[in-house]
Amino acid sequence: MDPDAVARAFVEHYYTTFDANRAGLANLYQEGSMLTFEGQKIQGSQNIVAKLTSLPFQQCQHNITTVDCQPSGAGGMLVFVSGTLQLAGEQHALKFSQMFHLMPTPQGSFYVLNDIFRLNYA
Amino acid sequence: MDPDAVARAFVEHYYTTFDANRAGLANLYQEGSMLTFEGQKIQGSQNIVAKLTSLPFQQCQHNITTVDCQPSGAGGMLVFVSGTLQLAGEQHALKFSQMFHLMPTPQGSFYVLNDIFRLNYA
Repeated sequence: MDPDAVARAFVEHYYTTFDANRAGLANLYQEGSMLTFEGQKIQGSQNIVAKLTSLPFQQCQHNITTVDCQPSGAGGMLVFVSGTLQLAGEQHALKFSQMFHLMPTPQGSFYVLNDIFRLNYA
Repeated sequence: MDPDAVARAFVEHYYTTFDANRAGLANLYQEGSMLTFEGQKIQGSQNIVAKLTSLPFQQCQHNITTVDCQPSGAGGMLVFVSGTLQLAGEQHALKFSQMFHLMPTPQGSFYVLNDIFRLNYA
């Protein structure tokens, strides 16, 4: 397993799903998963997806600028992303940074244990 | 232990040390520690500090905009920072994002297992 390839595949899957069908992100999180979104702390797959689906925009498009990854111990992986978020009807894209801590599942896949998102205001 | 207070204290200590005496960061890292700096991967306390002390500027000042933290399992903690980096003689500060994965030491302190740094170009 090439960790960088896994990280890139995860990032591609995550943002494609986010932009097409946010509710589809539910199976990437578990009950112990944590999201800190612009400083707001949310725990559990259901609460996290409720937050993401209630964000005050309908259509959006993430464009990824950088993806960095490192092994974090116990089979886990840290993925650090920077990019831009274009909201429908807005002239300028928003810059963001986001980190994910992926942990292995018994099925040989990964779930998101930790997720921290911040807009980078200009 | 209040994790947010620990995270803020770490961040304060880290950047104060970085700006005053980068070589003093050595004892925050161990042999298994990893730094990804603008995409370049470096491992081990000695190599990490060699990288940080060889950056092409002498004086700098970090200003912190946001600090987010989450428990990462096994007593560890993820700390996600955004802020600006002012280099001596430069007119404009650079925006950056950085994440740290802190793991507990037997002495009851923390060391940096993972460190990922990215400038956020405007």
